[in-house]
Amino acid sequence: MSVVVVGSVAYDGVETPHGRVDRMLGGACTYISLASSYFAPTKIVGVVGEDFAREDENLLGGRGIDLEGLERVPGKTFFWSGVYSADMNDRTTLRTDLNVFADFNPKLPESYRKAPYLILGNIQPALQRSVREQMNGLRLAGGDTMNYWIKDYRHELLATIRDWDFLLINDAEARMLSGEYNLKRAAAAIFKMGPHTLVIKRGEYGAILFHRNWHFIVPGYLLEEVFDPTGAGDCFAGGFIGYLAERGFDLKNGHINPKELSRAVIYGSVLGSFCCEKFGVDRFRTLARKEIDARFEEFRTFTEF
Amino acid sequence: MSVVVVGSVAYDGVETPHGRVDRMLGGACTYISLASSYFAPTKIVGVVGEDFAREDENLLGGRGIDLEGLERVPGKTFFWSGVYSADMNDRTTLRTDLNVFADFNPKLPESYRKAPYLILGNIQPALQRSVREQMNGLRLAGGDTMNYWIKDYRHELLATIRDWDFLLINDAEARMLSGEYNLKRAAAAIFKMGPHTLVIKRGEYGAILFHRNWHFIVPGYLLEEVFDPTGAGDCFAGGFIGYLAERGFDLKNGHINPKELSRAVIYGSVLGSFCCEKFGVDRFRTLARKEIDARFEEFRTFTEF
Repeated sequence: MSVVVVGSVAYDGVETPHGRVDRMLGGACTYISLASSYFAPTKIVGVVGEDFAREDENLLGGRGIDLEGLERVPGKTFFWSGVYSADMNDRTTLRTDLNVFADFNPKLPESYRKAPYLILGNIQPALQRSVREQMNGLRLAGGDTMNYWIKDYRHELLATIRDWDFLLINDAEARMLSGEYNLKRAAAAIFKMGPHTLVIKRGEYGAILFHRNWHFIVPGYLLEEVFDPTGAGDCFAGGFIGYLAERGFDLKNGHINPKELSRAVIYGSVLGSFCCEKFGVDRFRTLARKEIDARFEEFRTFTEF
Repeated sequence: MSVVVVGSVAYDGVETPHGRVDRMLGGACTYISLASSYFAPTKIVGVVGEDFAREDENLLGGRGIDLEGLERVPGKTFFWSGVYSADMNDRTTLRTDLNVFADFNPKLPESYRKAPYLILGNIQPALQRSVREQMNGLRLAGGDTMNYWIKDYRHELLATIRDWDFLLINDAEARMLSGEYNLKRAAAAIFKMGPHTLVIKRGEYGAILFHRNWHFIVPGYLLEEVFDPTGAGDCFAGGFIGYLAERGFDLKNGHINPKELSRAVIYGSVLGSFCCEKFGVDRFRTLARKEIDARFEEFRTFTEF
């Protein structure tokens, strides 16, 4: 069943200890949809400028991603650049040119509105909310946010996530949003805001999924080499929602299978780990589903006891 | 089968966001032996001063710990005090009075020398080495170290761990010892120094065990409240070696069961998590084996998928 992905489609300039790329395809919507496309029909909503390259469009289209909701408008595509610390756990933003993204006002094509799965990349909460309201018959909706919205747009953010099934953020964001340092208590506080499921991304340390009174924890995959962590969190999100869509996951029918949520977290982790193996979206040029499933099984071998 | 534990027996002054205790029983040998005592006969080697309280001796003795190797000499017991940061991920040492520990020269009682399991708490590498050499018929020997020995006593440390089966350190220490940031590569470098097994403690993020070409990762247990992390790493070590001793684990017979190593890591994690629930050794005044086994099973419920 289909997944609708909303968020930024961008060009990134990235420098890591392994090298530097001045301009490459990026953006949350791009990474989420690439990851999701391995599991389920994926439709994107975003905006790009006249400079958006045909080969980048072809990469997305080649993965079967529905581009009907990708608006092309006069001007330049959103550009972001940043540099990672030596251990790649921190990054500094060098430049953010919103360009055409400044006036982004997502409008869903008619053919998107009945999709059962929706994932909202990190954009202004009011925009996330407007997309949610354009959809009918959702089985599962959720998304990401960031410190900026939590701090300066709290009221708007709370009005937005009230209608979400899941929130997918990192540990610092969960602490900031809830005002609780302890992650169990942070989850309990966030459940009172609306979502029944909270996924906390912990970078190299993996992820935790909280669902009501239950939780699941997965450690991070140990890579020999992390080339570029850009997009890893978004690929996690794409693997997570994509797998649930593939399984036709439906919380509303009351038959909640926690194992399906756990496996979605593993697939999220798998996609996030592949993302780091090359610069930008490069790993997705060759990645095959059988590699994904093999790494899913590898997670069993290093976590089972 | 018996475990010999060597290390500091101390008094600690500890301040955490949850409170402050000016003087309480502590030391690596104390924590390791308390944790190990739930699994296997445990014998300690250490030194205390005339101020060492009868009730503290009784706590250890009450857990069945063999105190024949605990020397009592004129002077005061080793004293350490420190204060934890608000998130308890960092601590600052306020005071270190070596006292009688300054002249510690561990001599093993005759009754200890044929014990099959040896774990060496973090002390000067030359002393760890001398203990190793006093033993006959070891099945498994290993221990802990710290940045100070890695940096300023590197040659002595390398001559010591050359004869160890396992090394149990944190991620920063593994990186410092190996000169490799990536933990897989750090493990490969450390295997060339002697140990065939490396356990990396990651605090709240859990632990990784590397054994030759294989590895196992466990996330940390999510506590509602961390009262005092002092001793958690040593309790991990005690649970790890204690469980292997209980199982009669023997690498030398060639029948290596990686699952046993994984389970030892889980038991280490379980003991480390209990340690944090109260100040100092307080949790061990009431902790029962059935609680330990129940938490071991809980690790399955939040890691299986």
